[in-house]
Amino acid sequence: MSMRRSLPGTVYLVGAGPGAPDLITVRGLNILRRADVVVYDALVNRALLDEAPPTAERIFAGKRAARHALRQEEINELLRRKACAHAVVVRLKGGDPFVFGRGGEEMAHLRALGVPVEVVPGVTSAVAAAAVAGVPVTHRQLSSSFAVVTGHLAADAPQEPCWDALACIDTLVVMMGLRSAGRIAERLIQAGRAPQTPALVVCAATLPEQQVVVTTLDGLEEAVAGLRPDAPSTLVVGAVVGMAEAAGGVLQDVWAPLFAQVASGAVAGAG
Amino acid sequence: MSMRRSLPGTVYLVGAGPGAPDLITVRGLNILRRADVVVYDALVNRALLDEAPPTAERIFAGKRAARHALRQEEINELLRRKACAHAVVVRLKGGDPFVFGRGGEEMAHLRALGVPVEVVPGVTSAVAAAAVAGVPVTHRQLSSSFAVVTGHLAADAPQEPCWDALACIDTLVVMMGLRSAGRIAERLIQAGRAPQTPALVVCAATLPEQQVVVTTLDGLEEAVAGLRPDAPSTLVVGAVVGMAEAAGGVLQDVWAPLFAQVASGAVAGAG
Repeated sequence: MSMRRSLPGTVYLVGAGPGAPDLITVRGLNILRRADVVVYDALVNRALLDEAPPTAERIFAGKRAARHALRQEEINELLRRKACAHAVVVRLKGGDPFVFGRGGEEMAHLRALGVPVEVVPGVTSAVAAAAVAGVPVTHRQLSSSFAVVTGHLAADAPQEPCWDALACIDTLVVMMGLRSAGRIAERLIQAGRAPQTPALVVCAATLPEQQVVVTTLDGLEEAVAGLRPDAPSTLVVGAVVGMAEAAGGVLQDVWAPLFAQVASGAVAGAG
Repeated sequence: MSMRRSLPGTVYLVGAGPGAPDLITVRGLNILRRADVVVYDALVNRALLDEAPPTAERIFAGKRAARHALRQEEINELLRRKACAHAVVVRLKGGDPFVFGRGGEEMAHLRALGVPVEVVPGVTSAVAAAAVAGVPVTHRQLSSSFAVVTGHLAADAPQEPCWDALACIDTLVVMMGLRSAGRIAERLIQAGRAPQTPALVVCAATLPEQQVVVTTLDGLEEAVAGLRPDAPSTLVVGAVVGMAEAAGGVLQDVWAPLFAQVASGAVAGAG
């Protein structure tokens, strides 16, 4: 039932998490369960849609690489329109709504028009994809910082990210970077990163079809060649990748002695 | 009842999220509800402890700044010992267990001893603290990358993070950086970041006592002077901070025209 409300409802920008449906937050799930409308993206697990009430309207607004179901301006306008007719409009986005999700644009658009917006953060695959492969993005001995960048930019953004600076950050996470993996590896090596730096590729993190590939920076292009280029993916570059459960065979010679020490606490710092 | 099991139980490294109890994941909550033992940190919301069974053993292993209840080696050993006696040992950590949580060290230690470990990622305040203030860490027009570093390092780490590189990343997030906020701001300005760059301080993000301060890089030291130096805090530096709900008064002259354009879609990119 779509009637005009005297005051607009609220648009909830909800992070659905990295893939598995139970990695949504409790708050996100509770709001989803009282949604009047759910506007969802391609990377959202379809099992979550079943959590909305049977009467809720479900609208696909997804995009994958170059194929957009709705342009961003159309999504913004759709959210405004639905909020004028319904109390609870859920904008359900893969991962966290503010990590490369254009959630910031949707929020600004709606607020400028007086539509209340609430953000419900989610687990970002920038961190979770590495975690499921047994890799922490930070580690006292191996990484005191991490940076996150999108691989889409490498192909079609107004400006390239600053690879020289990114190459200096201990752990670098590239989201949706399969298409540009070879070029990114080359740029990082040009910027001074060692070609033998461990590199991890995780596709479909936390889902049954999850794939994990452990390689090195100079082996990255070859390693991703067999993967679907538009699969949801996360690349992780840095010493922490040596901790991956799958790393033994690939990186053993270079990294095993260090990690044996770390595991035994022999190089642990104070407290 | 603590008896030796023939096979060790599983240690679940569970992220409790940024503060509010309902920002834990559904999976994390479900595991917590069948915990035999919960080993929790200072930043974990105590309301979550009530979700564990009444019979579960609850052990505080927290640390705040220099005061540690248990040393890291003691925590590692405690987890191993509890897993030898119980099926479900939950190691509950604020935020995400692999973002400055030493979760990587605990995982490596336990795996080396043959104890099964499962990581349940959480919402990290590196992203969520900015979000609750209305600030997305990425934005197509304003930020194509973000970096996360801990402020503790500035005081007592074996090596300083590379501030020159960090200054080049669009959005910089500093966790637990109140004590060193002035020094970090100085280093970033030395490295070429404009003194008028918007800066955000969020304390106790997502909790009732949450505090949000919007300032500029050169005003950061003064802005944090009134805050408890050991409060759980997140600093965010970059143009995206201009989108903060609280930003109007402070940053209006510099940033308002740009954000008005962004909100209206006038500078939106294609699709």
